Amino acid sequence: MLTKGYAALKAGDKLAPFSFERRELRDNDVAMEVLYCGVCHSDLHQARNDWGFGLFPMVPGHEIVGRVTAVGSAVKNTKAGDVVAVGCMVDSCQECDQCRHGEEQYCREGMTPTYAGQDRLTQEVTQGGYSKHLVVREEFILRVPETLDYSRVAPLLCAGITTYSPLRTWGVGPQSRVAVVGLGGLGHMAVKLAAGLGATVTVIGRSAAKAADAKELGADDYLISTDASAMEKAQSRFDFIIDTIPVQHDVSVYMPLLDVDGTMVMVGQIGPIDEQPTMPLVFGRRRLAGSLIGGIAETQELLDFCGRKNILPECEVINIDEINHAFERMEKSDVRYRFVIDMSSLSA
Amino acid sequence: MLTKGYAALKAGDKLAPFSFERRELRDNDVAMEVLYCGVCHSDLHQARNDWGFGLFPMVPGHEIVGRVTAVGSAVKNTKAGDVVAVGCMVDSCQECDQCRHGEEQYCREGMTPTYAGQDRLTQEVTQGGYSKHLVVREEFILRVPETLDYSRVAPLLCAGITTYSPLRTWGVGPQSRVAVVGLGGLGHMAVKLAAGLGATVTVIGRSAAKAADAKELGADDYLISTDASAMEKAQSRFDFIIDTIPVQHDVSVYMPLLDVDGTMVMVGQIGPIDEQPTMPLVFGRRRLAGSLIGGIAETQELLDFCGRKNILPECEVINIDEINHAFERMEKSDVRYRFVIDMSSLSA
Repeated sequence: MLTKGYAALKAGDKLAPFSFERRELRDNDVAMEVLYCGVCHSDLHQARNDWGFGLFPMVPGHEIVGRVTAVGSAVKNTKAGDVVAVGCMVDSCQECDQCRHGEEQYCREGMTPTYAGQDRLTQEVTQGGYSKHLVVREEFILRVPETLDYSRVAPLLCAGITTYSPLRTWGVGPQSRVAVVGLGGLGHMAVKLAAGLGATVTVIGRSAAKAADAKELGADDYLISTDASAMEKAQSRFDFIIDTIPVQHDVSVYMPLLDVDGTMVMVGQIGPIDEQPTMPLVFGRRRLAGSLIGGIAETQELLDFCGRKNILPECEVINIDEINHAFERMEKSDVRYRFVIDMSSLSA
Repeated sequence: MLTKGYAALKAGDKLAPFSFERRELRDNDVAMEVLYCGVCHSDLHQARNDWGFGLFPMVPGHEIVGRVTAVGSAVKNTKAGDVVAVGCMVDSCQECDQCRHGEEQYCREGMTPTYAGQDRLTQEVTQGGYSKHLVVREEFILRVPETLDYSRVAPLLCAGITTYSPLRTWGVGPQSRVAVVGLGGLGHMAVKLAAGLGATVTVIGRSAAKAADAKELGADDYLISTDASAMEKAQSRFDFIIDTIPVQHDVSVYMPLLDVDGTMVMVGQIGPIDEQPTMPLVFGRRRLAGSLIGGIAETQELLDFCGRKNILPECEVINIDEINHAFERMEKSDVRYRFVIDMSSLSA
């Protein structure tokens, strides 16, 4: 099927209208019209090829809500008209230990990313959700609870699951003291989700600028990382810290805030971590970890959880022709807190 | 009581004979004649004041086996003649959550180190086991299984518990694939203890020099970290890595060897960790942790475990007047694998 989208034709190009072919439906495929697509910071990194593994032309977008238009002959649980979602992955081997226990993101053969990946059968380059139509195998389709405002669901598929999965992996619940470092697309979801799970939530920022916002999002407390006295008092205060900062930074500022056996998990940054001392690790058996999105079953669990609790990201809905401007604003952290493209703004 | 020992009179001095007072027995105190004292790399660091928190004159030594000579009026479970042991701690608050669940090493008020600490009641500087006599409150006295060769028990009190505690914290057992980085005092205990717990054990070294030793100590495999092809093949191979290297080094070499959800724990180094990439953390939900010795109950568990399994360090027994030469050799890693001072070589 011929479809339209917005693509970076080569690394660093501005996004521009682009026509391309979506594959014909396989037996286990679902075709959808994209309704909304979230704008993730990684879309910008990838379009500029900051990480060096981009494939071009590139249609970004991996926070996708769509309406099913057709299904393959072997599709069981999805039908035309369903409102569904697609996240950061569109395939994996489905046979390894990781896939079998529902963590396709760590597939031994490597999961297939929604864009800038290669189809497992044809090696065709995958193209993302900044497009009118999408074709994805049924196993990677999520169901969107009907109670949710569809225009705000899309960021759950990356910003949401990226923060929800570590909260679940590390057992965050009503007894947990959680801190969130960085209050952007990921950080604001971490606040809402940790609060939704019953935790006591503190946002850590470099200045007081975001304190009011943090509390409005559900945080119980706000800590200013440049206030040495407040940071000293906060030593050993948290069981779990989720670090959403998307650029290189000094993690040693935050590690002593963890209690004995506490974990800080990095979810926002691909790149180097500054030199850090072993002492906070050794003298408190603290741990520094990373985490990558979440599995399909856990992403469905997140959507259902958000459906029950009516937890949604704060979104600024834009038209597709505003995407380059949105990228510029995102880079200046000038968004509260996630851009979502209304794909009806792209003519078919 | 006046006793004798070997002390560094000031930072960086060679150790020399030194007479000093041990406190009179308190009601809950146990007095012992020191039989053996292990020589830990940290003794050398502390005597040189490498970490900046030394107190001088300093009698080092925190791997201590002794025979009880007298007990205070309130001592319940220890009597003259018992062979007992003392490790890295001699006191803690005994009331905080950490002390209550048996992790005095993480006491909220700070545990009292066996030497270069300050007594909680009198602020008197504590002095270690390179001495003829020692007085310690009963709660910090360990029982030595009679079946063990007393001349080889002492290093269990630091090198042993420092490696045993993380193996237990991270649930190492018969299904575990464990790697040990660095084969010195700590590393060789990690091999014996992990093997004793039933794990499959691989030693990672910079050259093949220690391969035969590693296998003799109980390792199943040996991996050379400078062999790029072998390291590439070993990616995701281990559930747990225990890093015993005592100096600053690049941990990013080892992190990719962990499987999904694997942990590398640093136990040998106090100081900075080189800049490292987030990718192994994020793309495998791997964790980098630290760990500090172990609690008193866990140290007793270790001694009992070693008693049942007859697990003991490899020791080179020396006289006290050889200590400065032993320090020099230790600094060149010229010891297999731990010096133990026979304290009968120090006249009373």
